[in-house]
Amino acid sequence: MADLADLADVGRDRRRGGYSRHGFDRAELELRAWFAEQARGRGLDVRPDRNGNLWAWWGEPGPGAVVTGSHLDSVPGGGAFDGPLGVVSALQAVDLLRARGFRPAKPLAVVVFVEEEGGRFGVACLGSRLMTGAIAADAACALTDADGVTFGEAAHAAGFDPLRMGRDDRALASIGAFVELHVEQGRGLEEPVGLASSILAHGRWRFTFTGEGNHAGATLVEDRRDPMLPAAATVLAARRAATGGARATVGRVVPNPGGTNVIASSVDVWLDARADDEPRTREVVAAITAAAEGAARDEGCEVVVREESWGGTVTFDAGLMAEVRAALGADTPALPTGAGHDAGILAAHAPTAMLFVRNPTGVSHAPGEHAEPDDCAAGVVALASTLEHLAR
Amino acid sequence: MADLADLADVGRDRRRGGYSRHGFDRAELELRAWFAEQARGRGLDVRPDRNGNLWAWWGEPGPGAVVTGSHLDSVPGGGAFDGPLGVVSALQAVDLLRARGFRPAKPLAVVVFVEEEGGRFGVACLGSRLMTGAIAADAACALTDADGVTFGEAAHAAGFDPLRMGRDDRALASIGAFVELHVEQGRGLEEPVGLASSILAHGRWRFTFTGEGNHAGATLVEDRRDPMLPAAATVLAARRAATGGARATVGRVVPNPGGTNVIASSVDVWLDARADDEPRTREVVAAITAAAEGAARDEGCEVVVREESWGGTVTFDAGLMAEVRAALGADTPALPTGAGHDAGILAAHAPTAMLFVRNPTGVSHAPGEHAEPDDCAAGVVALASTLEHLAR
Repeated sequence: MADLADLADVGRDRRRGGYSRHGFDRAELELRAWFAEQARGRGLDVRPDRNGNLWAWWGEPGPGAVVTGSHLDSVPGGGAFDGPLGVVSALQAVDLLRARGFRPAKPLAVVVFVEEEGGRFGVACLGSRLMTGAIAADAACALTDADGVTFGEAAHAAGFDPLRMGRDDRALASIGAFVELHVEQGRGLEEPVGLASSILAHGRWRFTFTGEGNHAGATLVEDRRDPMLPAAATVLAARRAATGGARATVGRVVPNPGGTNVIASSVDVWLDARADDEPRTREVVAAITAAAEGAARDEGCEVVVREESWGGTVTFDAGLMAEVRAALGADTPALPTGAGHDAGILAAHAPTAMLFVRNPTGVSHAPGEHAEPDDCAAGVVALASTLEHLAR
Repeated sequence: MADLADLADVGRDRRRGGYSRHGFDRAELELRAWFAEQARGRGLDVRPDRNGNLWAWWGEPGPGAVVTGSHLDSVPGGGAFDGPLGVVSALQAVDLLRARGFRPAKPLAVVVFVEEEGGRFGVACLGSRLMTGAIAADAACALTDADGVTFGEAAHAAGFDPLRMGRDDRALASIGAFVELHVEQGRGLEEPVGLASSILAHGRWRFTFTGEGNHAGATLVEDRRDPMLPAAATVLAARRAATGGARATVGRVVPNPGGTNVIASSVDVWLDARADDEPRTREVVAAITAAAEGAARDEGCEVVVREESWGGTVTFDAGLMAEVRAALGADTPALPTGAGHDAGILAAHAPTAMLFVRNPTGVSHAPGEHAEPDDCAAGVVALASTLEHLAR
């Protein structure tokens, strides 16, 4: 029996609360080892792909496979469900199907994608983006973590060859359908289990404000070019711009050098922005950028804005959604989500669906993230029924 | 010959630029070892005190000593001069006095204070505060660095006994006069060398904003309690409050958990505030606190404000300043400074003076901090003449 409780002690973050598990860090590697052991214990054939993702096959790998899975990494100080629930539920669904005596007519696979949150290297869905070619391998391998370690170095240390990374047409061709089970991340789902209809367009932008580092006591206010001021103005501008259902968030700010008695020489501000479609998202980011540039100018500072990731609106496959409803019931609710997922990246390449498990409080990406055991069990049953329907 | 160039490779900060040398870290310990070796090479008697400071004696330790020195730690990403210039100049002044054949009638000591910048444990002038009892030993030893290591633990690892720390009346009684040479940190000094007249009242306050951590994509803007918003408002309020020569700076901001796609659950903001006197400084901080509280309320967040350190206005000893001018010339300029120093802490316990070396750009606490070699040489001559005058 695989259970979320098996993972409860791995990657706890004592400072932030919750979990910090990031692509190829010690905690994520421990979870991957746990997954491989669990999969092998079920007689599944565990095969890493070229891009750092782990596949466990029930049946011979090949085209037309029914694939499920999610990720094991978290945001910094994240909850227990986002990611691991989809992996654990997939293993439990395999158990359930076997207990039912089901033998899949199509190959069936459970996949674990690496660095879905982008919590270490900055780009979300890195494993699925690499596999689909949504990010170039050299660009991905050059991404650095806070200590200056590159994704390529971390992948190499974990046994992957950065030179072999990149779009994986064989892996893509093997996917007949992909179904990701995930905890819902808002309060929109009133039933235990539902379907995703769409994902908001979303991206990440890094604003680097540069001024003049100096002494916090000896420097007259009128002599300052303090990049913390336009950085703060940008945080407030982001909130003002997020109207009509759009979301704009600054959750990460890093002043350099970051001393109490030091006027910063530069400040990095990361903006996460999402809206219904690309034009609206771009409009929100443009308004925030204009405010940032104006505030920087007022303080004699400079600002450079870089897009670190982008994903357009995802509308999940209507045919596959109909199949899932054929398995689960025509009245299974479907709802849009503001959260990004590997399923959203794969949706451009294969019929893709998502199953959501109810979130009673809507809290996610935080230690308080929760789903009731009964709802998680209902999720496993729904996933098993879906896989059974698709793989028969 | 002791020279700043000897230290050029120790504690370089590749990420921030400049130097990161903090109390009892590897770089500071290496610099302390360098100092002890230099002092012993001159036949000085090196004696650590109970509080982590290093003393090097020329002559038998005892009351009425003429003491000079500074510190070897830096702010994160600091310059080469703030601190080390005073220590190196003291050693060079000893050399110069010996070359002149001077034999001090009073004991003479060079002291290196630990953690003057508070860059690791948060409280500036920690070594001199401990020695004078301005901070209680148990409070100092409980201070933690970013990794959760306490000052007591770090001091113990460096060979000091935390249980023996605290006000050191014998050390205080030994100081007949203290003269600290330091690079000037503004652009106020037009001559190569000047005197400090006073230090602004100054302190550090930590504002902890608490809201609700959540998902940056899935959480509707109207459902948010995002502590980053009042944190940003506080940065802007600090600038508005810093009028009439007062200074208010936010150089350090730490959101928790600090993920790009995560609404922070809490944000710590450190405020450095300084003004001519205590009432005016308190007034500035009160205005910023009121703004922080209002902004927190508007976002459904809470804020707790803690004073992390405080130092009242320091006016340097008029008698000692007259003595120094007797040695250096009656027209030696004197100027106030916004920067705190160990000399400011000691000023309440012994006649204390400061010599400033001209800073051509006014940049300090940053890699660009600079003083011309000729001005540094003039500083050594001035310090030697001062010590000769006082110790004869």
